[in-house]
Amino acid sequence: MTQPKANVHRVFHALGDPTRRKIVEQLSERPYSVSQLAIPLAITVAAVVQHLQILEESGLVRTAKLGRVRTCRIEPTGLSVMEQWISERRTTWEKRFDRLGDLLEEPEES
Amino acid sequence: MTQPKANVHRVFHALGDPTRRKIVEQLSERPYSVSQLAIPLAITVAAVVQHLQILEESGLVRTAKLGRVRTCRIEPTGLSVMEQWISERRTTWEKRFDRLGDLLEEPEES
Repeated sequence: MTQPKANVHRVFHALGDPTRRKIVEQLSERPYSVSQLAIPLAITVAAVVQHLQILEESGLVRTAKLGRVRTCRIEPTGLSVMEQWISERRTTWEKRFDRLGDLLEEPEES
Repeated sequence: MTQPKANVHRVFHALGDPTRRKIVEQLSERPYSVSQLAIPLAITVAAVVQHLQILEESGLVRTAKLGRVRTCRIEPTGLSVMEQWISERRTTWEKRFDRLGDLLEEPEES
């Protein structure tokens, strides 16, 4: 079994697409088979398979085949990559305000 | 001044593009003018302006013109929208495990 290679670019690209976000939303509720996913999305099974491949490569979804049915589950690695990127932006941004606050609080030199 | 209308689709679409993520990364460090942003990205000012428009509409960036210079700053609204979406997925997903845990802990009926 190959480990999904989650990286910032793959995850953001994967979730930039509304159908793929919909798939992740569905799978956060419970595992689904490929054909079960296709019904509410009103797209073909082949299209779902393509989206799933991108989601799997981004570490957002895991799929496993048992007999003739492929079951899809959410994989939290990809979401963590995204959270990490946002958190880094916030930290950098907030640090700037802290430095500004420090400057304002510094007593004037006499 | 119009309020940026951040919504899930706009924010994910905006950050699905690597150049726009780069702009947000830059602006989390400090405000930049449009032409200052263009240099490290090695793209034209016109291209930066187009990206900035999408970022502004997504509530990820704010710009203000003073004289002939347009200054760009990060706007945290868009990042919050994204964090909220991820957090909802995580909550739904983790709740399912809690329910599973409860089921496993339930004493067998005699």
